[in-house]
Amino acid sequence: MTSFTLQTQRQFARSGQLETKHGVIQTPFFMPIATKGSVKSLSSGDMRDLGAQIILSNTYHLLLRPGLEQMTALGGLHRFMGWERPLLTDSGGYQVFSLSKMNKTTEEGVTFQSHIDGARIHLTPELSMQMQAAIGSDIVMQFDDVAAGNSSRERYEEAMERSLRWAERSKKEFEKIHDSNIPPLLFGIVQGGTHEDLRERSAQGLINIGFDGYAIGGLSVGEDRADAYRIAKRVCEVLPQDKPRYFMGGGMPEEIVAYVQMGVDMFDCVLPTRNARHGTLFAWNQSPETIDWSLYQDPHPSTLFYDRVRITNESYQQDQTPLDPYCTCSTCKTTSRAYLRYLFSVQELLAYRLATIHNLHFYLTLMQSLHKWIQTTA
Amino acid sequence: MTSFTLQTQRQFARSGQLETKHGVIQTPFFMPIATKGSVKSLSSGDMRDLGAQIILSNTYHLLLRPGLEQMTALGGLHRFMGWERPLLTDSGGYQVFSLSKMNKTTEEGVTFQSHIDGARIHLTPELSMQMQAAIGSDIVMQFDDVAAGNSSRERYEEAMERSLRWAERSKKEFEKIHDSNIPPLLFGIVQGGTHEDLRERSAQGLINIGFDGYAIGGLSVGEDRADAYRIAKRVCEVLPQDKPRYFMGGGMPEEIVAYVQMGVDMFDCVLPTRNARHGTLFAWNQSPETIDWSLYQDPHPSTLFYDRVRITNESYQQDQTPLDPYCTCSTCKTTSRAYLRYLFSVQELLAYRLATIHNLHFYLTLMQSLHKWIQTTA
Repeated sequence: MTSFTLQTQRQFARSGQLETKHGVIQTPFFMPIATKGSVKSLSSGDMRDLGAQIILSNTYHLLLRPGLEQMTALGGLHRFMGWERPLLTDSGGYQVFSLSKMNKTTEEGVTFQSHIDGARIHLTPELSMQMQAAIGSDIVMQFDDVAAGNSSRERYEEAMERSLRWAERSKKEFEKIHDSNIPPLLFGIVQGGTHEDLRERSAQGLINIGFDGYAIGGLSVGEDRADAYRIAKRVCEVLPQDKPRYFMGGGMPEEIVAYVQMGVDMFDCVLPTRNARHGTLFAWNQSPETIDWSLYQDPHPSTLFYDRVRITNESYQQDQTPLDPYCTCSTCKTTSRAYLRYLFSVQELLAYRLATIHNLHFYLTLMQSLHKWIQTTA
Repeated sequence: MTSFTLQTQRQFARSGQLETKHGVIQTPFFMPIATKGSVKSLSSGDMRDLGAQIILSNTYHLLLRPGLEQMTALGGLHRFMGWERPLLTDSGGYQVFSLSKMNKTTEEGVTFQSHIDGARIHLTPELSMQMQAAIGSDIVMQFDDVAAGNSSRERYEEAMERSLRWAERSKKEFEKIHDSNIPPLLFGIVQGGTHEDLRERSAQGLINIGFDGYAIGGLSVGEDRADAYRIAKRVCEVLPQDKPRYFMGGGMPEEIVAYVQMGVDMFDCVLPTRNARHGTLFAWNQSPETIDWSLYQDPHPSTLFYDRVRITNESYQQDQTPLDPYCTCSTCKTTSRAYLRYLFSVQELLAYRLATIHNLHFYLTLMQSLHKWIQTTA
């Protein structure tokens, strides 16, 4: 199985292709988040227009509504939302930990109360695999045990060890479900908090089981950026060269640039979409075509390649220039800062849409620029 | 001044052209409502894609935010929202009456408290003309005194007489502001409740002053549909043939069909957009291409040419057919009833957008079908 093909490397940064059932994705790439089967305020057509290669959806949310049975009857999420490109689903482990009330973890799985109606749900590695299969995911994530950001070493170790056992159960169930010639891809998740030795054991354990790709989980949960950086770097050293690496849930643009230069291939983050809906917009302060990304290897660069625009700021009241002169998105081509500010101030639904289009365009352009930068090394 | 050209009549129904500073509009037409400079959830580009010939915006809301001074500095609403087609603005009279707290009417104007921050504002015919000029409206409405739907004859008469005096003041201020070669169009508003004699006096008084078009105001405010029908019919008999007629604030599709067949040319209504956001969708039950509209002269037809779909209904949970098989809008071309229902049930922003696109497409298609039906009489 050669789903991942490395094409070019520039120091540790990699560009390549990841082949899925719904098409080939250029790496490195960013996945906009369609939590409940829609990137908030945008349609599947909008995502195609933006050039998104792949989107991410959340098993936890889709398990609560529409549920496993409905999703099966509907024929999967691609058909349901009219999205024919690749789709990755997380396993639900993180959401159970972060969203549900009264979750209780045993070796068997996690029992939790739905954050919607309080219903009692028992989520196991097996159910997670079944739900991701019902969704029709192209990249399936193992079910994992997620320790809180400030846990003791003991708790991190316990969660990491259990995640390894759940990785085995995930793979076993996955293989039971997918006996077809072209199964989806299955990824393991490296856990272990900010402890390098735990992370190494986790990565090695997953490699021994064998996955199509490996994710770095349990970061971007409030730890120092330097810790996340140190752990990601170490994990990248342990992980095999010929498999894709996925940094889960991060991050700010400069973090993504730094992680790409450590050898990470895949990203997802709520920042562009959530910030957009709160009126915080990313704007290039130079042309993204010509940035030398080697100047931004550190996730704490002294200067940034973009500005954060608080569009609700009064200073934009009569600013009839586009939000971002370097941007070619439909928002920047058709609206002014003054109009965007006004739409936010009167809480028009259009504000959230225009801002989301722009911020996603920013992240997707960032990935294209990084891809091009890596490829031009050759 | 020949801004309005009648082309074809079919009994009382008329089709023609209305010339404005921002282009020619085919009549009869419907104006989607962009209350605060955006048709809720849609962009100006979306409105172009839908084929909207003209939109309506509200002087009252724009006077509160961004205000007269800001709107002037911004260069008007066309530029602000990126809309280059015609624009009609109401005068604020109706919103002062329906939205503001503690409004007090004197011969001079209306003093009211902003429904946003309680600020005290004094709105007069002169200020309404100034604000509509700042907006850059193509069709300006006179400032009128609007009586509540269940008022006494005395109150209706008082409001109607005052509206006539305010019509004169509106026209005087309008002419003072617009000394250019091509001013916008100015419309008078016929008032008088459900009293035919008051309506006749109102219409005659406005004709004596002389306007570019005449609106029927103060209907669709809770009166019986039969009363509205009777009054609109009577007013259409009194109004001149060679000027456009505008039924303000109505209505359901079958009402619009009936009013067009009385000789009304222009409509606006919140129903398609507001209903959309609440999950009530209009769906053709036959092809709109081939309907004989003469079967629908009565606003209470025994059968309707459409169904009202409550998309949140559980029966659509697994319905993978399009919302409306006769519809060619982007929503119906790309999504299923099941997906729409789901988006509403999880309150995704996309739901409001997809539904709004469909309902506006329904109303705009209705107007095109009526236009074609009138024209094929020749």
